[in-house]
Formats: sequence, structure tokens, C-alpha cells
Amino acid sequence: MLLKKNIPISYVFGKVKYEVTFVVIYATLIGIWDKYLHGISMSIPLSVPMVLGTVLSLLLAFKSNQAYDRWWEARIVWGAIVNDSRTLVRQLLYFMADPYVSVSVKNFQDRFINRQIAWCYSLGQSLRNQSPTNRLNKYLEPEELEFVSKHDNVPNALLQLHGRDLKRLLQEGQVNKYQQVELDDTLTRLCDSMGKCERIKNTIFPVTYGLYIHFSLFIFILLLPFSLLDTFGILEIPMVVIIAASFFLIEKMAIHLQDPFENKPTDTPVTTIARTIERNLKQMINDHKVPEKIKAESFYVL
Amino acid sequence: MLLKKNIPISYVFGKVKYEVTFVVIYATLIGIWDKYLHGISMSIPLSVPMVLGTVLSLLLAFKSNQAYDRWWEARIVWGAIVNDSRTLVRQLLYFMADPYVSVSVKNFQDRFINRQIAWCYSLGQSLRNQSPTNRLNKYLEPEELEFVSKHDNVPNALLQLHGRDLKRLLQEGQVNKYQQVELDDTLTRLCDSMGKCERIKNTIFPVTYGLYIHFSLFIFILLLPFSLLDTFGILEIPMVVIIAASFFLIEKMAIHLQDPFENKPTDTPVTTIARTIERNLKQMINDHKVPEKIKAESFYVL
Amino acid sequence: MLLKKNIPISYVFGKVKYEVTFVVIYATLIGIWDKYLHGISMSIPLSVPMVLGTVLSLLLAFKSNQAYDRWWEARIVWGAIVNDSRTLVRQLLYFMADPYVSVSVKNFQDRFINRQIAWCYSLGQSLRNQSPTNRLNKYLEPEELEFVSKHDNVPNALLQLHGRDLKRLLQEGQVNKYQQVELDDTLTRLCDSMGKCERIKNTIFPVTYGLYIHFSLFIFILLLPFSLLDTFGILEIPMVVIIAASFFLIEKMAIHLQDPFENKPTDTPVTTIARTIERNLKQMINDHKVPEKIKAESFYVL
Amino acid sequence: MLLKKNIPISYVFGKVKYEVTFVVIYATLIGIWDKYLHGISMSIPLSVPMVLGTVLSLLLAFKSNQAYDRWWEARIVWGAIVNDSRTLVRQLLYFMADPYVSVSVKNFQDRFINRQIAWCYSLGQSLRNQSPTNRLNKYLEPEELEFVSKHDNVPNALLQLHGRDLKRLLQEGQVNKYQQVELDDTLTRLCDSMGKCERIKNTIFPVTYGLYIHFSLFIFILLLPFSLLDTFGILEIPMVVIIAASFFLIEKMAIHLQDPFENKPTDTPVTTIARTIERNLKQMINDHKVPEKIKAESFYVL
Amino acid sequence: MLLKKNIPISYVFGKVKYEVTFVVIYATLIGIWDKYLHGISMSIPLSVPMVLGTVLSLLLAFKSNQAYDRWWEARIVWGAIVNDSRTLVRQLLYFMADPYVSVSVKNFQDRFINRQIAWCYSLGQSLRNQSPTNRLNKYLEPEELEFVSKHDNVPNALLQLHGRDLKRLLQEGQVNKYQQVELDDTLTRLCDSMGKCERIKNTIFPVTYGLYIHFSLFIFILLLPFSLLDTFGILEIPMVVIIAASFFLIEKMAIHLQDPFENKPTDTPVTTIARTIERNLKQMINDHKVPEKIKAESFYVL
Repeated sequence: MLLKKNIPISYVFGKVKYEVTFVVIYATLIGIWDKYLHGISMSIPLSVPMVLGTVLSLLLAFKSNQAYDRWWEARIVWGAIVNDSRTLVRQLLYFMADPYVSVSVKNFQDRFINRQIAWCYSLGQSLRNQSPTNRLNKYLEPEELEFVSKHDNVPNALLQLHGRDLKRLLQEGQVNKYQQVELDDTLTRLCDSMGKCERIKNTIFPVTYGLYIHFSLFIFILLLPFSLLDTFGILEIPMVVIIAASFFLIEKMAIHLQDPFENKPTDTPVTTIARTIERNLKQMINDHKVPEKIKAESFYVL
Repeated sequence: MLLKKNIPISYVFGKVKYEVTFVVIYATLIGIWDKYLHGISMSIPLSVPMVLGTVLSLLLAFKSNQAYDRWWEARIVWGAIVNDSRTLVRQLLYFMADPYVSVSVKNFQDRFINRQIAWCYSLGQSLRNQSPTNRLNKYLEPEELEFVSKHDNVPNALLQLHGRDLKRLLQEGQVNKYQQVELDDTLTRLCDSMGKCERIKNTIFPVTYGLYIHFSLFIFILLLPFSLLDTFGILEIPMVVIIAASFFLIEKMAIHLQDPFENKPTDTPVTTIARTIERNLKQMINDHKVPEKIKAESFYVL
Repeated sequence: MLLKKNIPISYVFGKVKYEVTFVVIYATLIGIWDKYLHGISMSIPLSVPMVLGTVLSLLLAFKSNQAYDRWWEARIVWGAIVNDSRTLVRQLLYFMADPYVSVSVKNFQDRFINRQIAWCYSLGQSLRNQSPTNRLNKYLEPEELEFVSKHDNVPNALLQLHGRDLKRLLQEGQVNKYQQVELDDTLTRLCDSMGKCERIKNTIFPVTYGLYIHFSLFIFILLLPFSLLDTFGILEIPMVVIIAASFFLIEKMAIHLQDPFENKPTDTPVTTIARTIERNLKQMINDHKVPEKIKAESFYVL
Repeated sequence: MLLKKNIPISYVFGKVKYEVTFVVIYATLIGIWDKYLHGISMSIPLSVPMVLGTVLSLLLAFKSNQAYDRWWEARIVWGAIVNDSRTLVRQLLYFMADPYVSVSVKNFQDRFINRQIAWCYSLGQSLRNQSPTNRLNKYLEPEELEFVSKHDNVPNALLQLHGRDLKRLLQEGQVNKYQQVELDDTLTRLCDSMGKCERIKNTIFPVTYGLYIHFSLFIFILLLPFSLLDTFGILEIPMVVIIAASFFLIEKMAIHLQDPFENKPTDTPVTTIARTIERNLKQMINDHKVPEKIKAESFYVL
Repeated sequence: MLLKKNIPISYVFGKVKYEVTFVVIYATLIGIWDKYLHGISMSIPLSVPMVLGTVLSLLLAFKSNQAYDRWWEARIVWGAIVNDSRTLVRQLLYFMADPYVSVSVKNFQDRFINRQIAWCYSLGQSLRNQSPTNRLNKYLEPEELEFVSKHDNVPNALLQLHGRDLKRLLQEGQVNKYQQVELDDTLTRLCDSMGKCERIKNTIFPVTYGLYIHFSLFIFILLLPFSLLDTFGILEIPMVVIIAASFFLIEKMAIHLQDPFENKPTDTPVTTIARTIERNLKQMINDHKVPEKIKAESFYVL
């Protein structure tokens, strides 16, 4: 997630450097050809590119909107993960029927909650194509780590371990039948959130959509100098570059928003959220080794 | 689902080849008539087609948006099928009260889970108008296959078999009353997802909507050469073709997105998703015969 | 629901025949007056109607969108009715605790399921202002038919009978307490779907919205000939008619989509859906008298 | 809710009479000044107001859309109230375990259901800033009326009485534990619907939004005559008035839709809906004193 | 939340004072340079800034829409908090099985309900970056206050205390097993609402989106005087200022709506809502110390 401050100008315009370079060269060639070689007799009335410009603006606006919706949905899902992690711990602490806080209950709860923290980190890492078991040894028992390593989908395997523990709780009479089902409901919501993230990650935004917009945008920009030459002469070059840069920046922004799990500055900040969850959950069980908040990079958090 | 890479240019423009051919011929005829026969004295100011162009752009943008929503809903439903399949298996494994893993329990679970895999494939195939029982013999017992073959709606019959098994589980005391209801809830969600897919498949996008847009688009393109002749002369031909191609491509894109179960490259990749489910579920029960992931076709997955 | 094929051209343009006739006469009068009587000295620049045209296009596009949402919501609700009908039957078949399929249980289930089929037909008929008890004698016992006939709201009375039967099931110990509540949940969802249909049926789309758009559209069309006379002379007549027809068609399409229970070809096909439900449910209970699918009318299904 | 027929023209245009009068005077003054005093040398090209007109149209269209969404949400909430009232009665009738219909059970149910009817009327009245206890004595016992009169929020107090009765039902063994929780769920949904109505009522649509649109609209109209004088001369007066009226009507429509509980003809018809609920509920308990349907006012229902 | 009346003009225009000042200076410099120094020979046709203006209007309209959605979601979440607080109290009062109102039960309920009131205030304060424990000593026991002070997230700690009390209720047999789970469900919904507020608070609206719009807006305004000089001469100054002010006001409005927890007049009125909740809850338990309603500031409530 980009922060409000300190976004370097190089970051903003670095996104469109190839496109802008191309436009500069193209517009300059047209400008020079016209000025020194008098080679261009064709002048296009501005309303021709404007027909394309209108439909292009509309499609870009709708595409930005859809990309924004994807980005916002990704954030909503991670918000739900925060909520359900807290709920899971609250339920675990206050459903378990043990009248005194025995060592074994405390150990059980600690292991369960650490596994939930591991689940959050693991989900974030696998969405970003990083090793899903990386750094999990802090939170998992060795045999748990070994169990989950055999699975394609590590977060799903962790939920499976949660389920196995709930079964044990019921068998030992530590939770009653309704409470087990209620806890299982919370696991189901976590499973849904996980699946929603995978859906956003794995579903490619309709490729043809982007292609047709890109194609129309290029036609629009190729026509533009011929419409501006008459009025501006050599000054068409900055005009074309500015207009093209505006459109390209908006196109790029949509492309970045639509893929929120790519380990880029515009990502949903899954690591930061997982850390917040870790801090919250550890405070809920009076764990003293609460880690620091993640410090922001220069202009973004991951 | 189209992949990001390797989309052949012939695929992209193949969609509009008839329309573009028509426009090329039409624009050429007008161009030749004007140049060699001097037959055209009428010149339409560009703002006339632009009135139509504006309303057309808006309607196309809204229609693309609605088509995108249909496509995205289809993907959401299949994401929910992934989630609920995993949840069903987790619940089945950890609700069943058998204290030791006996052979009969293991057999029961294997049969149930294979039937769930069969359900996913069967739903995908029936949505694509393929035989819904095709290749299901790998996953179903012969008598199950015979039972479902008698039904119009094979996936619904498979859910019925799930329900029958849950009843047996309750009667044998393998799950308690709440757990049976909870498992039935998961079946209900799967039944809802199935119905949502059928709704998207069976509901024709409002035909008049498409017709009126198509009609307006043709009027717009028929008027266009008369507006461009004055400025461009014979060069109106490429201009008209480019503008028409942009509009037709956007129209086609919407048409493809709005019907996501047609066994085309732009489909929701239901076979690939079903295979992912198969892999996940089989790993959850330590089945060693986990199939390979589906390899992508040249530029799409189905 | 209109089908993709065979929509007669007369149906498409029949919707706007009065409006188009009016425009033809109006545009012709203006054209004749100008050509033969030289009576018109006023020429309006095209940008004046375009100011109105832009806001009109936007409002029409938004209104089409809202009408589409209403139409799609109606279809979603009927999709939910399909799902919940199947779920209700699955639950009834596999919740009831009778260990052997006795005659009385079979009779009870048959009566219940036939009543559910009756509910679907009855809801569809009452939404279309047809007699809600029409043709229900095939599915209901005489005393049930008599009971529901006394009610304003027949489908609601049928749900009441469902509720009464569930009470009996619980009292006789055929379902347990959780299962009764779960079955009642399914009834609640059916009750919600019914209420949603009634809401769509009974809520008039904001009348002023339509009126203002209609008013602006007429102003726009009344101004249009004066803008086109200069350029086109007598040819303004087809131009005005074509542009007006495009706008009127889009307006009409929205009007038809927004009211999906009017017994018109653009309706949500509630009879066809109810027949699908009947076929599904009867196959689920091995009833041999499964009716035929509804055949499409020439170009639509109801 | 406005009905489709008989909307008096005076109602439609009465909404904008002050604005239109102002525009008439303003446009006339400009027209006279130009014609008789030759005082105006400035002519603004039409494209200047069109820049404002485009952004204005967009904002008006989006604002209409948001106002429509508020209006539609209000209607959805009242639809949910209809559904949950029916569900509450169905559950009450068929959950209560009394095997014979004793007098006391009948009395209890009658009182409960009359209180639910009172809740609907009371909610509607308090949303419209009318006395929430007005005419409730028909439906409530004197001591209930006294109890609720002490509360700021009468409908909430009625739900509290519902809750107290449910407690009694459980204590007397008339419903089982699951049924009580299920009935409480229905109360929770009614409580949610009540809160949603209050939210729509109490949340002022962003004031600055409306102000900025109003400000831009006035600038647009003030510029308009100067753009039309050249072409139309004194005829600019009707042109300006017509265009201004179109924009003002659309603005007013949005303002009316966005506040649906103001005791105005464009309101959500809460009294009519409450009467429908009363009729449905009374028929469900065979009450013979079912009131008449509410007759429509000349062109609207409240 | 801004009220409808009494919004000072200085508040409205104070938002854009820097931008407008800049535009005044810039437009004046251009105007003077042109009039007295005849230094400007370049005149840009108005259609060049209009290309940018169209795409800008669209993006501003979509951005306003997304900001409005955020603002409305924040209000919906606080509406849900109202509903769930009432539901929580209703459930607590009528689930607890104590047949007579003993002192200890009354004390327990009072403490619980005061803690819920504290939760509402605390959540509002922490969202506005104020001390979350400020003024909570009126509602919390000293040891509760000490417990929550150790937590990063005070509202979450309060929910934890709620959960602990529910456990005690179950252990003492004051509520049955289903009722405890039902009450826990209500806590889960409150936990979700809390998380949703935090999500809206902590998620920065995509920064690049705003930057690109701001960048395009400046380009648009820098070009504008050159397009208006020819027609208006020195009168371009007010024209440019008016058009620029319209765009800047709309941009600012969106920026204010998108961040609804900043302790500004445009905030969601969380303190006022929390006070309403306090009044409702205290009346539900017959507490006589119901506080006054919050009086509006001159033109807004917080």
C-alpha cells in the first residue's frame, strides 16, 4: 500500500517511461518532418481523435472502477481475516470449559493461536509466490511444519490441523457440541477468505479488455499529432506527450490496482496486517513477546 | 480463461473478421465512388455521428460492465465451490466421531470425497453442455453412477447421495445432531452455487439490449465515411476501419464475457478449478494418486 | 425471456411504432415547410441539442443499468427459489428419521413436495396477476386448496401449511429439534424470496425519473430537425427518424426490463422455471409422472 | 410512492417553480437588454458552458444513481420487514408446542401478533416524525402502551416486549431452546431493519455534494444565454428555460428520492405496507376483522 | 456530518482557497501579459482542454462515487453497531434464566451494558486517533479499565471481557448453551463492525489515483486561459477561476468523503451515534441517568 507522503516522482513516472519515451520520439519525428521537410499535408480535425477519446475515457474509467473493486475486495477479505482471527481466539479462550487455567490448557491455547498467526503469514506469502513455510518455524511445532510441508496448499493444511484440534477439544469435553460447531463456523469463514484471495490472485483480469483499450489508446495517440500540428506547430510535441502521459498513467494505475498480491508497493499490505493480527492475538493471551509494528518503507508498506 | 501471454493476433482479430471485412468493402466502395465517379455531394458534419457515438459509447461501457459482472460472478461462484469443497472435507474428517481410523470409516470418507470431486467435474461438464457423467466412473461406484444417470440434473443427484450418506452417519452415531445440520448447511451452499451457475448459463443476456446497440453501431458506421471524406479523401478507408474495429472489438469482448460456460477460451476455467479441488481434497486425505495440474493450452486454460 | 433466435423485426420495432410515426410526421412537416415554403429561417447549431443529448444519454444509460439490475435481481430471486426448493426436498428426504420407507412417510413426503411445486406455480401466477390457485388442484389436496383460497396471499398460506406439517413432524419425532429449525430456515428463505418478488412487482420505478427523461427526449427530438436542415435538406427526415428511433428503443428496453412480471415476452420466465423445479423435485422422489419441459414459443419463453 | 397514472402536471413542475421563474426573468432581462439596448457585445462560444455541462451531467447522473440506491434500499428494508413479520407469525404459530388450541395460547398469539402489527405502524410513524404511539391503542394492551410511551424509541421498546414474551414461552416450555433462539433471530432481523431505516432517515446526504452541483448548475445557466443570443436572438429565452428546467427537474428528482421518509408523495409507502402486513398476519390467525386495503390518493400512496 | 442549514460560505470555499488563489494569480498574469504586453500569440482551440476535461470529469465522477461508497459504508457499519448493541441488550435481558430480578443479576446486567456503551465510545475515539480510554471511567470498573489499558486495541479488549462474562453466565447456568452461542454470535458481529471501521480508517485511498487526477486537473487548468483569451480577453480571468473552482470543489468533496474518521465536520458522527446508543440502552434497563442528546455544533455534528 502506498503511503500518502514521500512518493518519489521517479516512482510515479517510472511506470510509464517506455510508453512516454516512445511518444516523445514519435511526436518529435512528426514535428521535425513537418517543420523542416514540409512533408505533411494531412491535417486531421481534432474531433476525429475525440470520437476515440470519448469511448476510451469511458472504458478507462470503467476499467479503473473494476480494478478498484478488485483491490478493495482484496482489502475487505484481509479485514475479514483480522476479524475472524480475533473472533477465533475470543471463542477459544472463553468457550473452553476448563474451570482453572491449567498448564495443558494454556499450552494448547498457545499452540493453537500461534498456528493461527502462522496461517496469516503463510497465506500472505503464498499469495505473493513466496515460500509459504518461510519463517513459520517460530510459530509451529516441528511435526506440524512437517505435516503442512507435504501439501500444495499450506494454509489449507493449517486449517486442517485447526479442525483436528477442535475434534480433540470436543472429545475431551473441553467445548460442548454447539461451541465446536460455532468454532468450526469460524474456520469456515477463514477458509472462505483464503479462497477469495486465491480467486483474486489466480483470475487474470480479462485480457482482451486490456488489449482493446491499449490498442485504441495507441490509435488515439498516433492520430493526435496530426490534429495538433496546425494549431501548435512544433509545440504539439509537449501537448501530445502530456495528454498521452495522462492516459498512460491512468491505464497503469488500473493495472496495478487489479493485481493486489504481486509483492509490489501497490499491494494489499498483507505482511503488515499479519503483524497486526500477531500483536492483537498475543496481547489477548498475555504473551509478553509481542513483536514490533512493521515500520513503513520509504513510501509504502507491504 | 485467457492467459496473459501468447494470445495470437489471429485470435484477437478473428472475432471481428466478418464485421471488419464488411466495413472494408463498404468504406472502399464509398471511397472509390467519391474519387473516381464524383458521385457524392453529401458531406455530413462529424458531430452528427458523434451524437450517436456518445450514446453508443455509454451503452457499450455499461454493457461491458454488466458482462464483466456476470463473468466475475461466475468466477466467484466457482471460488465458493472450491471453499465449500474444502470445508466439506474438513468437516467430514473432523466431525466423524470414530476414535480410531478403522477401515470402514476410511472407505466411507474416500467414497464421499471422490463423489465430491465427481460433483465438481460433473457440474462443469453439464454447464458446458457436455455429458455430465463423462469420465465419472473413476470417482463413483457403479451403483452411484447408475442412480445419477437417471436424472436430468446429475450434480443435484450427487448432492442427494451426499444427503443420504449424512443421514446414515447420524443414524450410526458417527456425527452428532448439530454436526449433521452443519454438514447439511455446507451441502446447501453447494446447492446454491450449482443453482447460480445454472442461472448464469440459462439466462440469456437481454437480447433487445444487444440488438439495439448493434443497430446503433451499424448506423454510426454507415454514417462515418460521409463525415471523413472531406478531410481525408481516400484515407477515410483506414480511418473508418480502425474506428469500426475498435467498437466491434469492445462489443465482442462484452459478448464473450457475458457467457462464461460455452467451452471457449474466454470461459471460466471450470475444468482447471475442478482439478485443483481434486488435488486439494486428495492431499487432505493422504491419497497418493494425486493427478497432475492441468497444463495450459497455448494461450488459455479451460 | 426473449430467446436469441427468431425475434421478429416487427416485435422489435413494434415497441416504438407510435413514437416513430410521430417523429416521421413531425420531421416530414418541417422538411416540407423548409423546402417548399421557405418558411424556416432559424437554424440551430448542432451543439445545442447535443448539450441535451449528453445528459440524456447519461440518464438513459444509468436508467438502463437500474432497469437491468431489477431484471437481474428478479432472476436471482427465482434462481434462489430453485435452489431452496431442491434443498427443502433433500432435507425432507434425509432428515426424516423413519428407518424403513413406510407408506405413510412416502405419502407425507409426496404431499409436501407437491405442495412445494404448487407454491412455485402459485407465486408465478400471482405475480402476473393471474389467479394464484389456477391449475393447483393437480398438486394440492382439496382441503388444502380450500384453506389457501381464503387468503389474499396464496403462496404465503402454502408456506403456512408447510410450517404446520413441520410441527407435526417434530411432534411425531420424525425429525429432531435441530432439523426442524433447519427446515424452518429453508422456509424462511422461501418466504424472503416471495417477498422480494412482491417488492419488485409492487414498487413502481420512480415515475418522475421516467417522465423527466421522456420530457427531455422530446425536447431533444423537437430541436433536432432544425439542426440538421442546413446540412441535409430534405435528408434530415431519415436522419432524425434514425436517431430518434435509437433513443426510443433504448428507452423502451429499459421500461421492459424494469417490470419483469407482466406476462410479456421480456418477463422473467417464471412458468418455465417452475416447470424445471417440478421436474427436478419429482425425479428426486422417483415420481414417474415427470411432465415435459416447456417448449419455447416462437421467440420467447414465459 | 407515486402511481403511474394521474400525476398532475402542476405537481411535476411545481417542484421547480422558483428556479424556473428565476431563469425566465434572468433570460428575459438578457434578451431585452440585447435586443433593445444593444448592450451586450460579449458572445460566449457554446463549448464553454458545455465543459461545465459535461461534468455537471456526469455528477447529476451519479447523484441520481446514489439517490436511487437510497430509495431502493429503503424499499428493500421494508420488504424485509414484510418477510420477517410473516416469518415471525409462522414460527410463533408452529413452534409453540401446545397440542390443543387452548384459549390462553390463542390469546397469547393474538396479543403477540397485534404487537407486531403495532410495531410496523409505529416504525413508519416515527420515521415520518409523527407520534409513534398514534392509533396504537387498537393493537396494544394499555400496560404495553404505557411501557413503550416512556421510551424515546417506541419500536425498540416493542421489540423488547417481544423478547420478554419469548422468555416466558421458553420458561413455560411452550417452545424449545432452539426455537427460542430461532425466534430471537427473527427479532434480530427486525431490529436490523429498524436500524437501517433510522440510518437512512438520520444520515443527511453529503451536503457539500449537493451544494457544489447546485453552484455549478447556476454558473452553467448564467453563462447559457450569452452562448445562445447570437444564434437565436430573443428565442434564447425559451431555449434557456427548457434546458434549465430539464436540469433542475433531474436535480429535484434526486433530492426527493434520497429522502424516502418525509411524508411526501415520493415516500416509501410505509403506511400501505404496514396495512398489507396487518391484512396478511390477521388472515394467518383467522382474525375476521381484516381491515380494508388502503386506497390510493389521487396520484400516490403513502 | 454536515447539517443542512447554516453551512458558512467560508467553510465551503475555505477548502479550496490555496488552489483558487493560485488560479487567480496565474490567470491574471496570463491576462495582463496578453493585454498589455501582447506577448501571447498562441491560442489553443477549446477542444484541446476538452479532451482532457472529458476524461477528467469521468474520473472525478467515478472517484466521487467511490469516496461516497466508503463514506456510506462507514455509516452502514455504525448503523450495524446501533442494531447489534440493542440486540445484545435485548438478548442479555431476556436470555438470562433468573426467575426473579435479584440484585446480583441486575448488577451484572448493568455492568455489561455500561461496558457495551464504553465500547462504542472507545471505538469512536480510537478511530479518530484520540485516547481510546478517555472518559471511560464513567462506564467501566477500575479493574476493567486497567485490563484494557494494557492493550493496543482497547475495543477488542472490551469484547474479550464481554466474552469472559458470557463464559461465566454459561458456567453459572444463567443462560443455556444455545443462548451463549447466540450471544457470542452478536459479539462476533460487533467484532466484524469494529474491523470494518479499522479497515476504512487504515486503508489509504489509492494514492496514485488521486495524484494522476490532480496532475491532469492542473494540466487542464494551465491550458484553459489560452483557450479563452481569444473570446473573452481579460474576462478569461473570472471564467477560468469559476471553472477551476468547480473542479477543485468536487475533487475536495471526494477527498473529504473518503476519510470519514478524521475528527472533521464531514466525519461520520460517531460520538452522536454512541450517545444515541447510550440513551437507548439505558432506557432499556430503566436507568434514570439517561444523558442529554448531543447538541449540534453550528453546522455539523461529530
